[in-house]
Amino acid sequence: MKLVQFMMTTGKIKLGVVNGEKVIDLNSYANWIPNDLIKFLHEHDYAFEKLKEIALDPRNQSYPLNKVHLMPPIKKPDKILGIGLNYTDYCEENKIPYPKEPIVFSKFASTIIGPFDKIQHPSCSQAVDWEVELVVIMGRVTRNIKAADAFDYIFGYSATQDLTAKDWMTRNGGQFLLCKNMDHFCPLGPYIVTKDEIKNPHDINIKTWVNGNLKQSGNTKNLIFKIDKLIEHLSSVMTLLPGDVICTGTPAGVGSTRNPPEFLKRGDVLETEVEGIGRLRNVVF
Amino acid sequence: MKLVQFMMTTGKIKLGVVNGEKVIDLNSYANWIPNDLIKFLHEHDYAFEKLKEIALDPRNQSYPLNKVHLMPPIKKPDKILGIGLNYTDYCEENKIPYPKEPIVFSKFASTIIGPFDKIQHPSCSQAVDWEVELVVIMGRVTRNIKAADAFDYIFGYSATQDLTAKDWMTRNGGQFLLCKNMDHFCPLGPYIVTKDEIKNPHDINIKTWVNGNLKQSGNTKNLIFKIDKLIEHLSSVMTLLPGDVICTGTPAGVGSTRNPPEFLKRGDVLETEVEGIGRLRNVVF
Repeated sequence: MKLVQFMMTTGKIKLGVVNGEKVIDLNSYANWIPNDLIKFLHEHDYAFEKLKEIALDPRNQSYPLNKVHLMPPIKKPDKILGIGLNYTDYCEENKIPYPKEPIVFSKFASTIIGPFDKIQHPSCSQAVDWEVELVVIMGRVTRNIKAADAFDYIFGYSATQDLTAKDWMTRNGGQFLLCKNMDHFCPLGPYIVTKDEIKNPHDINIKTWVNGNLKQSGNTKNLIFKIDKLIEHLSSVMTLLPGDVICTGTPAGVGSTRNPPEFLKRGDVLETEVEGIGRLRNVVF
Repeated sequence: MKLVQFMMTTGKIKLGVVNGEKVIDLNSYANWIPNDLIKFLHEHDYAFEKLKEIALDPRNQSYPLNKVHLMPPIKKPDKILGIGLNYTDYCEENKIPYPKEPIVFSKFASTIIGPFDKIQHPSCSQAVDWEVELVVIMGRVTRNIKAADAFDYIFGYSATQDLTAKDWMTRNGGQFLLCKNMDHFCPLGPYIVTKDEIKNPHDINIKTWVNGNLKQSGNTKNLIFKIDKLIEHLSSVMTLLPGDVICTGTPAGVGSTRNPPEFLKRGDVLETEVEGIGRLRNVVF
């Protein structure tokens, strides 16, 4: 299932499932269904089965996909966790040794924008870089979970650009917070694909194009810390909540390691694809 | 005004104003008032005047303060921003040069606990340290605001312990995220005091006691980056939202710089006082 939050031309926001060229309106099923996926995840353990049952009901209303506006598939998660230096090819390209444990940073929920929304170029940076990433969406309260059980706590997967102001990476006392958290720095979507449709999250092609030119072409098989190990590590330190977002890291091909370095500028078209999830298209303005 | 969110014995959560030994139930005024302060701040620019008007209405119901449970005065802010190395006395005690620009890190909203809630000692750390801090609560959407205008964007002030697992400070590739974000690491309250009642936020005594022994005794006059400068800096990088929390830094006297070092252990009673705000009391278990 491809879960979305979408806006009608009336401005009304709804929870939906994309089915071909149509979007099924889950809020047409019953008025107890929230129009907010995180709220649904909090209210229903193993939410996936319940959502599938609802989506299959033939009485649901649907709309042509091209007549609605796709919002970010979730809004206001408690946490957006990012993992630094998590691809072998990224570390090799940057001549950095593989980290011995995950390097975790964060983004604020307010940095999330939709899959086709515009990115405002921040006036305080001259080095905004792309970083395509496979995203994990947690489905349950997750605390001290071992890697062997980790997949049971995942709801699904999505795609992001973990946009980063590289000229702020060495500022702020070396803390990544500011370089990762300028407005609009987390385009997310186009859907959350439930985990049953992703057979092996550790063999997925992920790509970035800028103005049609392929810049990153990686595969999640090169993740240094795999998704199950990340969940074990993170949940040993803090409680993960339904809707929490884990951005798993980016492969080689970012702008800052090119010769000469390349960064996003106003007018650029940034396209992001994660195999099995879909493609985002965000214009920089 | 001392704003609170409180829980009745029925489990119902309400927005209130503390008046002596009583709490005025703002939700008894009208049913359009949310029981969530952040929601109110989002819906009302200059919310302070509106809240004062409501609180003064004699028809409001009130309850004895000792018959309700004080919750954190806000929940689910978009951002909790922390400032590292922001007191002259802290830097001198730690023999660290004053930073040239603010060092900003973050905490997740889910780390917030109430002013009298218990702190679960994290099993993954043996070095949980106290850090009393004056907290700023933003009242309005704040973007590219100069220091001269910054106070116009503040809603009020509160108090926190920016609890930190010092043994995780050098792990995680030097990123502070994990050492600052274990569960329960942000006791907040007891109130949000509106800014009209804090004449000079840069001359406030702030203190920590552990088991009745004074450990930190600082004054906000020793802040390296003052509140107005912090807001200018932060809002030049990202949009601050109503309800966003800025923890302004901690003075000398933390456990890790003592000889021998001292850290919180199960059974400890942690008390936190910020002059003009009030006192928190959190037991470690």
